[in-house]
Amino acid sequence: MPIINVKMTHEDGGATKEQKELLAKKLTQAFSEIFNRGEKSTVVVIEEVNTDNYAIGGETITNIRKNKA
Amino acid sequence: MPIINVKMTHEDGGATKEQKELLAKKLTQAFSEIFNRGEKSTVVVIEEVNTDNYAIGGETITNIRKNKA
Amino acid sequence: MPIINVKMTHEDGGATKEQKELLAKKLTQAFSEIFNRGEKSTVVVIEEVNTDNYAIGGETITNIRKNKA
Amino acid sequence: MPIINVKMTHEDGGATKEQKELLAKKLTQAFSEIFNRGEKSTVVVIEEVNTDNYAIGGETITNIRKNKA
Amino acid sequence: MPIINVKMTHEDGGATKEQKELLAKKLTQAFSEIFNRGEKSTVVVIEEVNTDNYAIGGETITNIRKNKA
Amino acid sequence: MPIINVKMTHEDGGATKEQKELLAKKLTQAFSEIFNRGEKSTVVVIEEVNTDNYAIGGETITNIRKNKA
Repeated sequence: MPIINVKMTHEDGGATKEQKELLAKKLTQAFSEIFNRGEKSTVVVIEEVNTDNYAIGGETITNIRKNKA
Repeated sequence: MPIINVKMTHEDGGATKEQKELLAKKLTQAFSEIFNRGEKSTVVVIEEVNTDNYAIGGETITNIRKNKA
Repeated sequence: MPIINVKMTHEDGGATKEQKELLAKKLTQAFSEIFNRGEKSTVVVIEEVNTDNYAIGGETITNIRKNKA
Repeated sequence: MPIINVKMTHEDGGATKEQKELLAKKLTQAFSEIFNRGEKSTVVVIEEVNTDNYAIGGETITNIRKNKA
Repeated sequence: MPIINVKMTHEDGGATKEQKELLAKKLTQAFSEIFNRGEKSTVVVIEEVNTDNYAIGGETITNIRKNKA
Repeated sequence: MPIINVKMTHEDGGATKEQKELLAKKLTQAFSEIFNRGEKSTVVVIEEVNTDNYAIGGETITNIRKNKA
Protein backbone atom coordinates (compact mmCIF):
# COMPACT_ATOMS: atom_id res chain seq x y z
CA MET A 1 0.00 0.00 0.00
CA PRO A 2 2.45 2.62 -1.16
CA ILE A 3 1.39 6.24 -1.03
CA ILE A 4 2.25 8.49 -3.96
CA ASN A 5 1.63 12.18 -3.34
CA VAL A 6 1.83 14.62 -6.23
CA LYS A 7 2.07 18.36 -5.71
CA MET A 8 1.69 20.36 -8.91
CA THR A 9 0.80 23.91 -9.83
CA HIS A 10 -2.78 24.66 -10.77
CA GLU A 11 -2.40 26.22 -14.23
CA ASP A 12 -4.62 26.91 -17.26
CA GLY A 13 -7.80 25.92 -15.49
CA GLY A 14 -6.19 23.03 -13.68
CA ALA A 15 -5.64 19.40 -14.51
CA THR A 16 -8.70 17.81 -16.07
CA LYS A 17 -10.51 14.87 -14.56
CA GLU A 18 -9.20 12.70 -17.39
CA GLN A 19 -5.60 13.79 -16.80
CA LYS A 20 -5.91 12.97 -13.12
CA GLU A 21 -7.43 9.55 -13.85
CA LEU A 22 -4.59 8.84 -16.24
CA LEU A 23 -1.96 10.09 -13.82
CA ALA A 24 -3.28 7.87 -11.02
CA LYS A 25 -3.32 4.88 -13.34
CA LYS A 26 0.17 5.45 -14.78
CA LEU A 27 1.88 6.15 -11.45
CA THR A 28 0.31 3.04 -9.95
CA GLN A 29 1.39 0.96 -12.94
CA ALA A 30 4.95 2.27 -12.74
CA PHE A 31 5.19 1.39 -9.08
CA SER A 32 3.63 -2.05 -9.34
CA GLU A 33 5.68 -3.09 -12.37
CA ILE A 34 8.92 -2.25 -10.59
CA PHE A 35 8.10 -3.70 -7.18
CA ASN A 36 5.56 -6.42 -8.01
CA ARG A 37 3.15 -5.10 -5.42
CA GLY A 38 0.77 -2.24 -4.95
CA GLU A 39 -1.26 -2.88 -8.09
CA LYS A 40 -4.54 -2.81 -6.18
CA SER A 41 -3.47 -0.92 -3.10
CA THR A 42 -1.34 2.05 -4.19
CA VAL A 43 -2.87 5.32 -3.04
CA VAL A 44 -2.34 8.38 -5.22
CA VAL A 45 -3.17 11.85 -3.90
CA ILE A 46 -2.91 14.83 -6.25
CA GLU A 47 -2.63 18.32 -4.79
CA GLU A 48 -2.95 21.29 -7.12
CA VAL A 49 -1.37 24.41 -5.69
CA ASN A 50 -2.00 28.04 -6.67
CA THR A 51 0.97 29.52 -8.56
CA ASP A 52 1.17 32.28 -5.92
CA ASN A 53 1.94 29.57 -3.37
CA TYR A 54 4.62 27.72 -5.32
CA ALA A 55 8.09 29.12 -5.82
CA ILE A 56 11.42 28.10 -7.29
CA GLY A 57 14.66 29.84 -6.45
CA GLY A 58 12.76 32.35 -4.35
CA GLU A 59 10.39 33.43 -7.16
CA THR A 60 6.74 32.43 -7.26
CA ILE A 61 5.59 30.59 -10.36
CA THR A 62 3.13 33.45 -10.93
CA ASN A 63 6.05 35.85 -11.32
CA ILE A 64 8.20 33.42 -13.29
CA ARG A 65 5.37 32.96 -15.81
CA LYS A 66 4.80 36.74 -16.01
CA ASN A 67 8.47 37.52 -16.64
CA LYS A 68 8.64 34.95 -19.42
CA ALA A 69 5.59 36.34 -21.20
CA MET B 1 4.89 18.57 19.80
CA PRO B 2 3.92 15.73 17.53
CA ILE B 3 2.31 16.55 14.19
CA ILE B 4 -0.60 14.44 13.03
CA ASN B 5 -1.64 15.02 9.44
CA VAL B 6 -4.86 13.51 8.15
CA LYS B 7 -5.66 13.27 4.45
CA MET B 8 -9.20 12.19 3.73
CA THR B 9 -11.61 12.39 0.83
CA HIS B 10 -14.12 15.20 0.78
CA GLU B 11 -17.42 13.35 0.51
CA ASP B 12 -21.12 14.06 1.15
CA GLY B 13 -20.57 17.75 1.73
CA GLY B 14 -17.37 17.20 3.65
CA ALA B 15 -16.56 16.58 7.29
CA THR B 16 -18.56 18.81 9.60
CA LYS B 17 -16.98 21.26 11.99
CA GLU B 18 -18.06 19.02 14.87
CA GLN B 19 -16.49 15.94 13.31
CA LYS B 20 -13.22 17.78 12.82
CA GLU B 21 -13.24 19.06 16.40
CA LEU B 22 -13.84 15.54 17.63
CA LEU B 23 -11.18 14.07 15.36
CA ALA B 24 -8.57 16.56 16.59
CA LYS B 25 -9.48 15.80 20.19
CA LYS B 26 -9.47 12.02 19.81
CA LEU B 27 -6.23 11.80 17.83
CA THR B 28 -4.50 14.03 20.37
CA GLN B 29 -5.85 11.93 23.25
CA ALA B 30 -4.70 8.71 21.62
CA PHE B 31 -1.19 10.04 21.14
CA SER B 32 -0.82 11.56 24.58
CA GLU B 33 -2.19 8.50 26.41
CA ILE B 34 0.32 6.25 24.71
CA PHE B 35 3.39 8.47 24.96
CA ASN B 36 2.62 10.59 28.02
CA ARG B 37 3.36 13.77 26.14
CA GLY B 38 1.78 16.00 23.53
CA GLU B 39 -1.47 16.57 25.41
CA LYS B 40 -1.22 20.34 24.98
CA SER B 41 1.15 20.52 22.06
CA THR B 42 0.04 17.97 19.46
CA VAL B 43 -0.78 19.64 16.16
CA VAL B 44 -3.49 18.09 14.02
CA VAL B 45 -3.96 19.16 10.41
CA ILE B 46 -6.88 17.78 8.42
CA GLU B 47 -6.79 17.92 4.63
CA GLU B 48 -9.92 17.08 2.69
CA VAL B 49 -9.18 16.04 -0.86
CA ASN B 50 -11.54 16.01 -3.85
CA THR B 51 -12.47 12.45 -4.87
CA ASP B 52 -11.13 13.19 -8.38
CA ASN B 53 -7.72 13.70 -6.81
CA TYR B 54 -7.61 10.58 -4.65
CA ALA B 55 -7.12 7.13 -6.15
CA ILE B 56 -6.65 3.55 -5.00
CA GLY B 57 -5.24 0.86 -7.23
CA GLY B 58 -5.14 3.30 -10.12
CA GLU B 59 -8.84 4.23 -9.91
CA THR B 60 -10.05 7.57 -8.60
CA ILE B 61 -12.48 7.44 -5.69
CA THR B 62 -14.96 9.27 -7.92
CA ASN B 63 -14.96 6.32 -10.30
CA ILE B 64 -14.88 3.69 -7.58
CA ARG B 65 -17.99 5.24 -6.00
CA LYS B 66 -19.72 5.45 -9.40
CA ASN B 67 -19.01 1.83 -10.27
CA LYS B 68 -20.38 0.66 -6.95
CA ALA B 69 -23.61 2.59 -7.36
CA MET C 1 -8.75 5.02 2.80
CA PRO C 2 -7.69 7.98 4.90
CA ILE C 3 -3.99 8.54 5.47
CA ILE C 4 -2.81 9.52 8.93
CA ASN C 5 0.80 10.62 9.10
CA VAL C 6 2.45 11.10 12.49
CA LYS C 7 5.72 12.96 12.90
CA MET C 8 7.20 12.68 16.39
CA THR C 9 10.58 13.12 17.96
CA HIS C 10 12.69 10.05 18.51
CA GLU C 11 13.39 10.21 22.26
CA ASP C 12 14.53 7.82 25.01
CA GLY C 13 15.35 5.01 22.62
CA GLY C 14 12.34 5.68 20.44
CA ALA C 15 8.77 4.48 20.46
CA THR C 16 8.51 0.77 21.13
CA LYS C 17 6.95 -1.66 18.72
CA GLU C 18 4.04 -2.04 21.12
CA GLN C 19 3.46 1.70 21.34
CA LYS C 20 3.42 1.96 17.58
CA GLU C 21 0.97 -0.93 17.26
CA LEU C 22 -1.28 0.73 19.80
CA LEU C 23 -0.99 4.13 18.16
CA ALA C 24 -1.95 2.73 14.75
CA LYS C 25 -4.92 0.92 16.30
CA LYS C 26 -6.18 3.92 18.30
CA LEU C 27 -5.82 6.49 15.53
CA THR C 28 -7.65 4.19 13.13
CA GLN C 29 -10.42 3.59 15.67
CA ALA C 30 -10.81 7.31 16.32
CA PHE C 31 -11.16 8.05 12.63
CA SER C 32 -13.54 5.22 11.83
CA GLU C 33 -15.81 5.88 14.82
CA ILE C 34 -16.25 9.50 13.78
CA PHE C 35 -16.67 9.00 10.04
CA ASN C 36 -18.06 5.46 9.82
CA ARG C 37 -15.46 4.47 7.28
CA GLY C 38 -11.79 3.61 7.12
CA GLU C 39 -11.91 0.83 9.71
CA LYS C 40 -10.11 -1.58 7.41
CA SER C 41 -8.45 0.86 5.04
CA THR C 42 -6.94 3.68 7.11
CA VAL C 43 -3.21 3.93 6.54
CA VAL C 44 -1.06 5.12 9.44
CA VAL C 45 2.56 6.12 8.87
CA ILE C 46 4.73 6.99 11.87
CA GLU C 47 7.91 9.01 11.32
CA GLU C 48 10.34 9.38 14.20
CA VAL C 49 12.59 12.38 13.79
CA ASN C 50 15.95 13.05 15.47
CA THR C 51 15.67 15.83 18.08
CA ASP C 52 18.40 17.74 16.21
CA ASN C 53 16.05 17.93 13.24
CA TYR C 54 12.93 19.08 15.09
CA ALA C 55 12.57 22.61 16.40
CA ILE C 56 9.97 24.79 18.07
CA GLY C 57 10.21 28.56 18.14
CA GLY C 58 13.58 28.39 16.43
CA GLU C 59 15.17 26.07 19.03
CA THR C 60 15.88 22.42 18.35
CA ILE C 61 14.30 19.93 20.74
CA THR C 62 17.83 18.77 21.58
CA ASN C 63 18.61 22.23 22.95
CA ILE C 64 15.22 22.71 24.59
CA ARG C 65 15.69 19.42 26.49
CA LYS C 66 19.26 20.42 27.48
CA ASN C 67 18.24 23.83 28.77
CA LYS C 68 15.49 22.29 30.88
CA ALA C 69 17.82 19.76 32.46
CA MET D 1 16.85 21.27 -4.90
CA PRO D 2 15.60 21.34 -1.35
CA ILE D 3 11.85 21.39 -0.79
CA ILE D 4 10.44 23.68 1.87
CA ASN D 5 6.78 23.11 2.67
CA VAL D 6 4.93 25.59 4.85
CA LYS D 7 1.58 24.80 6.43
CA MET D 8 -0.09 27.80 8.04
CA THR D 9 -3.58 28.76 9.08
CA HIS D 10 -5.63 30.86 6.70
CA GLU D 11 -6.56 33.86 8.86
CA ASP D 12 -7.78 37.43 8.32
CA GLY D 13 -8.36 36.97 4.62
CA GLY D 14 -5.23 34.88 4.16
CA ALA D 15 -1.63 35.68 3.40
CA THR D 16 -1.28 38.33 0.70
CA LYS D 17 0.50 37.73 -2.56
CA GLU D 18 3.28 40.04 -1.37
CA GLN D 19 3.69 38.14 1.91
CA LYS D 20 3.96 34.87 0.03
CA GLU D 21 6.51 36.29 -2.41
CA LEU D 22 8.55 37.55 0.51
CA LEU D 23 8.25 34.28 2.41
CA ALA D 24 9.46 32.27 -0.58
CA LYS D 25 12.38 34.64 -1.05
CA LYS D 26 13.43 34.68 2.62
CA LEU D 27 13.16 30.93 3.20
CA THR D 28 15.20 30.27 0.07
CA GLN D 29 17.82 32.80 1.15
CA ALA D 30 18.06 31.29 4.61
CA PHE D 31 18.61 27.82 3.20
CA SER D 32 21.12 28.83 0.55
CA GLU D 33 23.18 31.00 2.89
CA ILE D 34 23.58 28.15 5.36
CA PHE D 35 24.23 25.32 2.89
CA ASN D 36 25.74 27.16 -0.09
CA ARG D 37 23.32 25.53 -2.48
CA GLY D 38 19.70 25.76 -3.49
CA GLU D 39 19.75 29.45 -4.36
CA LYS D 40 18.16 28.84 -7.75
CA SER D 41 16.58 25.45 -7.12
CA THR D 42 14.86 25.55 -3.72
CA VAL D 43 11.16 24.83 -4.05
CA VAL D 44 8.80 26.50 -1.60
CA VAL D 45 5.19 25.36 -1.31
CA ILE D 46 2.82 27.29 0.95
CA GLU D 47 -0.39 25.63 2.14
CA GLU D 48 -2.99 27.72 3.90
CA VAL D 49 -5.32 25.64 6.03
CA ASN D 50 -8.79 26.55 7.32
CA THR D 51 -8.75 27.17 11.07
CA ASP D 52 -11.44 24.47 11.49
CA ASN D 53 -8.91 21.97 10.13
CA TYR D 54 -5.94 22.97 12.28
CA ALA D 55 -5.77 22.11 15.97
CA ILE D 56 -3.34 22.36 18.84
CA GLY D 57 -3.69 20.33 22.00
CA GLY D 58 -6.95 18.88 20.71
CA GLU D 59 -8.62 22.28 20.14
CA THR D 60 -9.19 23.72 16.69
CA ILE D 61 -7.67 27.14 16.03
CA THR D 62 -11.21 28.38 15.35
CA ASN D 63 -12.18 27.55 18.92
CA ILE D 64 -8.91 28.78 20.43
CA ARG D 65 -9.40 32.16 18.72
CA LYS D 66 -13.03 32.31 19.87
CA ASN D 67 -12.22 31.54 23.48
CA LYS D 68 -9.56 34.24 23.54
CA ALA D 69 -11.86 36.89 22.13
CA MET E 1 8.44 21.49 -11.15
CA PRO E 2 6.00 18.96 -9.76
CA ILE E 3 6.94 17.09 -6.61
CA ILE E 4 6.20 13.39 -6.42
CA ASN E 5 6.65 11.88 -2.99
CA VAL E 6 6.56 8.10 -2.57
CA LYS E 7 6.16 6.45 0.81
CA MET E 8 6.66 2.71 0.73
CA THR E 9 7.49 -0.01 3.21
CA HIS E 10 11.10 -1.09 3.53
CA GLU E 11 10.88 -4.84 2.88
CA ASP E 12 13.24 -7.68 1.89
CA GLY E 13 16.35 -5.56 2.26
CA GLY E 14 14.73 -2.50 0.76
CA ALA E 15 14.36 -1.18 -2.73
CA THR E 16 17.57 -1.50 -4.73
CA LYS E 17 19.37 1.44 -6.23
CA GLU E 18 18.31 0.26 -9.67
CA GLN E 19 14.65 0.04 -8.66
CA LYS E 20 14.76 3.55 -7.29
CA GLU E 21 16.42 4.90 -10.45
CA LEU E 22 13.76 3.22 -12.54
CA LEU E 23 10.94 4.44 -10.31
CA ALA E 24 12.16 8.05 -10.53
CA LYS E 25 12.44 7.79 -14.31
CA LYS E 26 9.02 6.16 -14.82
CA LEU E 27 7.09 8.48 -12.50
CA THR E 28 8.67 11.51 -14.17
CA GLN E 29 7.84 10.16 -17.61
CA ALA E 30 4.24 9.47 -16.63
CA PHE E 31 3.79 12.99 -15.34
CA SER E 32 5.47 14.74 -18.25
CA GLU E 33 3.65 12.73 -20.91
CA ILE E 34 0.29 13.63 -19.43
CA PHE E 35 0.94 17.30 -18.69
CA ASN E 36 3.61 18.21 -21.26
CA ARG E 37 5.81 19.72 -18.60
CA GLY E 38 8.07 18.60 -15.80
CA GLU E 39 10.31 16.41 -17.96
CA LYS E 40 13.47 18.05 -16.64
CA SER E 41 12.14 19.53 -13.42
CA THR E 42 9.99 16.89 -11.69
CA VAL E 43 11.34 16.08 -8.24
CA VAL E 44 10.86 12.54 -6.94
CA VAL E 45 11.49 11.75 -3.28
CA ILE E 46 11.27 8.13 -2.13
CA GLU E 47 10.79 7.39 1.57
CA GLU E 48 11.16 3.82 2.76
CA VAL E 49 9.39 3.22 6.04
CA ASN E 50 9.96 0.41 8.55
CA THR E 51 7.08 -2.08 8.56
CA ASP E 52 6.63 -1.44 12.30
CA ASN E 53 5.80 2.16 11.43
CA TYR E 54 3.31 1.48 8.64
CA ALA E 55 -0.17 0.18 9.34
CA ILE E 56 -3.38 -0.58 7.48
CA GLY E 57 -6.71 -0.96 9.18
CA GLY E 58 -5.03 -0.56 12.54
CA GLU E 59 -2.53 -3.42 12.03
CA THR E 60 1.15 -2.82 11.36
CA ILE E 61 2.55 -4.32 8.17
CA THR E 62 4.93 -6.30 10.38
CA ASN E 63 1.98 -8.06 11.99
CA ILE E 64 0.01 -8.40 8.76
CA ARG E 65 3.00 -10.16 7.15
CA LYS E 66 3.46 -12.38 10.21
CA ASN E 67 -0.18 -13.47 10.29
CA LYS E 68 -0.11 -14.35 6.62
CA ALA E 69 2.99 -16.50 6.97
CA MET F 1 1.84 27.43 14.98
CA PRO F 2 3.01 27.15 11.39
CA ILE F 3 4.79 23.99 10.33
CA ILE F 4 7.84 24.28 8.09
CA ASN F 5 9.06 21.01 6.65
CA VAL F 6 12.41 20.88 4.87
CA LYS F 7 13.42 17.97 2.68
CA MET F 8 17.04 18.09 1.58
CA THR F 9 19.61 15.64 0.29
CA HIS F 10 22.02 14.12 2.76
CA GLU F 11 25.39 15.02 1.26
CA ASP F 12 29.03 15.25 2.41
CA GLY F 13 28.33 13.68 5.79
CA GLY F 14 25.04 15.48 6.20
CA ALA F 15 24.04 18.81 7.65
CA THR F 16 25.82 19.56 10.91
CA LYS F 17 24.02 20.13 14.17
CA GLU F 18 25.01 23.79 13.97
CA GLN F 19 23.63 24.18 10.46
CA LYS F 20 20.35 22.64 11.52
CA GLU F 21 20.11 24.91 14.57
CA LEU F 22 20.75 27.90 12.35
CA LEU F 23 18.27 26.76 9.72
CA ALA F 24 15.51 26.31 12.31
CA LYS F 25 16.24 29.75 13.74
CA LYS F 26 16.37 31.55 10.38
CA LEU F 27 13.26 29.93 8.91
CA THR F 28 11.31 30.74 12.07
CA GLN F 29 12.54 34.34 11.99
CA ALA F 30 11.61 34.75 8.35
CA PHE F 31 8.09 33.49 8.98
CA SER F 32 7.46 35.51 12.12
CA GLU F 33 8.82 38.76 10.68
CA ILE F 34 6.48 38.51 7.71
CA PHE F 35 3.34 37.38 9.52
CA ASN F 36 3.85 38.76 13.03
CA ARG F 37 3.12 35.40 14.58
CA GLY F 38 4.78 32.06 15.08
CA GLU F 39 7.89 33.41 16.79
CA LYS F 40 7.56 30.95 19.67
CA SER F 41 5.37 28.34 18.05
CA THR F 42 6.71 27.64 14.55
CA VAL F 43 7.66 24.00 14.17
CA VAL F 44 10.55 23.16 11.85
CA VAL F 45 11.18 19.58 10.78
CA ILE F 46 14.27 18.78 8.70
CA GLU F 47 14.39 15.56 6.71
CA GLU F 48 17.66 14.52 5.12
CA VAL F 49 17.17 12.12 2.24
CA ASN F 50 19.71 9.73 0.70
CA THR F 51 20.80 10.90 -2.78
CA ASP F 52 19.67 7.53 -4.18
CA ASN F 53 16.13 8.44 -3.09
CA TYR F 54 16.00 11.97 -4.50
CA ALA F 55 15.71 12.62 -8.21
CA ILE F 56 15.27 15.55 -10.58
CA GLY F 57 14.10 15.17 -14.14
CA GLY F 58 14.10 11.41 -13.71
CA GLU F 59 17.75 11.18 -12.62
CA THR F 60 18.77 10.44 -9.04
CA ILE F 61 21.02 13.01 -7.38
CA THR F 62 23.58 10.22 -6.96
CA ASN F 63 23.81 9.88 -10.73
CA ILE F 64 23.65 13.61 -11.41
CA ARG F 65 26.61 14.15 -9.07
CA LYS F 66 28.53 11.28 -10.66
CA ASN F 67 28.00 12.53 -14.19
CA LYS F 68 29.21 15.98 -13.25
CA ALA F 69 32.40 14.68 -11.66
